[in-house]
Amino acid sequence: MSKISVLPPSGFRDFPPKEAATRAWLVDRISQLYRAHGFLPISTSAVENLSTLQGKGGGGDNEKLIFRLLKRGEELERALEAHQELADLGLRFDLTLPLARFFAKHRGELPRPAKIFQIGPVWRADRPQKGRFREFFQCDVDIIGAQEIGAELDCITAILEVFGTLGITGVEVHLNDRRLLSALGRKIGIPDSIWTKALISLDKLDKIGVDGVIAEIGGHMSLSKEQSQAIAQLAKGGKETSLDFFRTLGEEAATAAGDMQGLLELLQASGHTNAVFNPSLVRGQDYYTGTIFELRHPNLSGSLAGGGRYNRLLEIFGAESTPAFGGSIGFERLVLLLQEKGVADAEQISRPQVFFPLLAPALRGPVTELAAKLRAKGLRVDVYPDAAKLKNQFKYADDRQIPYTAILGENELAQRQIKVKDMRSATESAMPLDEFLQRMEQLCRNQ
Amino acid sequence: MSKISVLPPSGFRDFPPKEAATRAWLVDRISQLYRAHGFLPISTSAVENLSTLQGKGGGGDNEKLIFRLLKRGEELERALEAHQELADLGLRFDLTLPLARFFAKHRGELPRPAKIFQIGPVWRADRPQKGRFREFFQCDVDIIGAQEIGAELDCITAILEVFGTLGITGVEVHLNDRRLLSALGRKIGIPDSIWTKALISLDKLDKIGVDGVIAEIGGHMSLSKEQSQAIAQLAKGGKETSLDFFRTLGEEAATAAGDMQGLLELLQASGHTNAVFNPSLVRGQDYYTGTIFELRHPNLSGSLAGGGRYNRLLEIFGAESTPAFGGSIGFERLVLLLQEKGVADAEQISRPQVFFPLLAPALRGPVTELAAKLRAKGLRVDVYPDAAKLKNQFKYADDRQIPYTAILGENELAQRQIKVKDMRSATESAMPLDEFLQRMEQLCRNQ
Repeated sequence: MSKISVLPPSGFRDFPPKEAATRAWLVDRISQLYRAHGFLPISTSAVENLSTLQGKGGGGDNEKLIFRLLKRGEELERALEAHQELADLGLRFDLTLPLARFFAKHRGELPRPAKIFQIGPVWRADRPQKGRFREFFQCDVDIIGAQEIGAELDCITAILEVFGTLGITGVEVHLNDRRLLSALGRKIGIPDSIWTKALISLDKLDKIGVDGVIAEIGGHMSLSKEQSQAIAQLAKGGKETSLDFFRTLGEEAATAAGDMQGLLELLQASGHTNAVFNPSLVRGQDYYTGTIFELRHPNLSGSLAGGGRYNRLLEIFGAESTPAFGGSIGFERLVLLLQEKGVADAEQISRPQVFFPLLAPALRGPVTELAAKLRAKGLRVDVYPDAAKLKNQFKYADDRQIPYTAILGENELAQRQIKVKDMRSATESAMPLDEFLQRMEQLCRNQ
Repeated sequence: MSKISVLPPSGFRDFPPKEAATRAWLVDRISQLYRAHGFLPISTSAVENLSTLQGKGGGGDNEKLIFRLLKRGEELERALEAHQELADLGLRFDLTLPLARFFAKHRGELPRPAKIFQIGPVWRADRPQKGRFREFFQCDVDIIGAQEIGAELDCITAILEVFGTLGITGVEVHLNDRRLLSALGRKIGIPDSIWTKALISLDKLDKIGVDGVIAEIGGHMSLSKEQSQAIAQLAKGGKETSLDFFRTLGEEAATAAGDMQGLLELLQASGHTNAVFNPSLVRGQDYYTGTIFELRHPNLSGSLAGGGRYNRLLEIFGAESTPAFGGSIGFERLVLLLQEKGVADAEQISRPQVFFPLLAPALRGPVTELAAKLRAKGLRVDVYPDAAKLKNQFKYADDRQIPYTAILGENELAQRQIKVKDMRSATESAMPLDEFLQRMEQLCRNQ
């Protein structure tokens, strides 16, 4: 047989046991924390109709990155002949659009407000590069049907608790409000259509700098000196972009500034003293209508988590106008941070506590029975499947760092005895079979 | 905005909170049981190179059901012009082929034998129908690098424990061995190439009956009376197909019959008295080389789980010849069985224990603080995000069946008091704020 590649496709990844255990452990921890805030889990289809994914501004730039599924059989032939679309399905590129679709379908059965979380993979046909993958996890938490800053507070603190619980300190909360940005655009006389493009440039501030932002906007319209200055102020976060300044930009801006003030105070009172108003924060998605936020760490570029209010998105799916707020943790980033710290818990639960070598095929029955009884007591127990060379069997137990080895030979069995070896102290002791289960349980519990 | 469909594509599903909670709980339980047997988790890419998926008999009929991902940009244009393949990637249709690829890549770092499990979605472009989906979960458990029946015993008992733990009784273990089937084909003088097709017909015994099996095989070659009789015996499980009969069919068959005998005895000694030798069991995949098994339930058609030994599959990926055995639980089937029984545990962990209505925006700070303190004690606590009508807030708590409601009004706060309402007894009691956290914790622990 000729050899096939053993690698996953470019941009995709496999996770060996240690990484897989860490990821599963982390999904579980995040789920627990989200549940502790009263959020309910949902799970949506990985595959969506292309008409959903390409639905009118829900996806922004990500729509260009959809993996499309080829039509099949006659349908494909017809499409090829008629030069029509070759695909009608695609892989989801985020969890927000599926949530909006899901909510529109199930809104009659869900509590209102609906507090929902989903953790799962999304796919983007991005150019693979260091730290950027074509398949990655998102951990979304959303409140649909609540309009006050309580929704912001609940989602953001739930996300902050994830970082806190994992011992990741120094996380900053950057907050802004799309209503403030709109008000500024109107104030300095930039038409809405160009201001939208200006915000896309501002979103790249990290990469292109203040001059780059102004140059890009200048490509769309000639900017007056005042306009350039106002944009520079915004980008630099000068005092002309304080909350007090925004309060003067009309009623909607004043309301937004008040909400921002309230949210900052509540976050700070909750112990999140690293929460700041950052008027240059934009976030990419078109669908945000109010508060937007990002979690950052001074030692890392990019963001750890982010999200915002999207009070209009649900209308795409025919639901009545419904306020909504949500956020998402960058799972892959978090895994990297955790791996640096090491996750003893995750490794621990993947490691058996007791190992039985198999000294002869005839001992398979008695050994299987003992292992089953230990498992019934809640222990993790590994039995070697072959009566292979003992050296290989002990090496296996060593490699896996299994703390106890229980050795049952034919002589021992005849004398109703068993030997237990403690891997760390390398001590061995014999004990009556009758006492083995109980003593083994005690040894493992006391570890 | 025009309305987009709110449904997932045909054959795909969304899972609302109750179902999503059950599924997540079940994945967790199965993982724990597999870990208790010493299996390590892995996670492979959802997307594979088509060359891997279409790799020489690894997929069998499932290769026809691959969802293929359309090439993109210039690559797609070139493929269209040159009438070449429009896709080079596809979604995995099972977890065995990815495991084989994964093992070939990582075999140097894995313990030997490698005991591995993977739980995750697979995709098949099957015609959607009742109980058959295009996206569904598999729960695979495999031992690579072990040749004796210890591997069979370990995997099958781990799978049986899943059903046992969930309280699903009456599960039957049907066992057969491909070596026995091959020996019979040789014995009755049917060429290998036709015997392979005969086994595919035999695999449909449930659907087409004994006569149907013989008619289908008769379409490939004219069968003698003796051949027809032997096949009918096999299909009916007559005494001409007892283990003793197979023992007479040469050395390989005698070894296989001995292994079968040993495995049956070990399973029965482990309390699995429903284990039987079933000579008409085939299992669809081409790659099986030895033991095959299926778990069935007398009240249900089809199987609950199945698998087999595939000692040659790893060679496809260039690994040296490596014995391997594995099995897979039909997750979707298991979910249906569980939902009939109801999974109190799964729903429980999704239900908050304490609810705080929000009586006025000014109380958001104090209420948030109390909620955070209760969560730090391990309780699940929900705070209503808006200062909405109290009637709506209480209805929300009722709908979610949250057992305790903690009511903090401005008067109460001024007097350092809080009211706690027990939803089931509908009794309300006031208590000092100082005692609230501790008493709330006690109430929830005693539930």
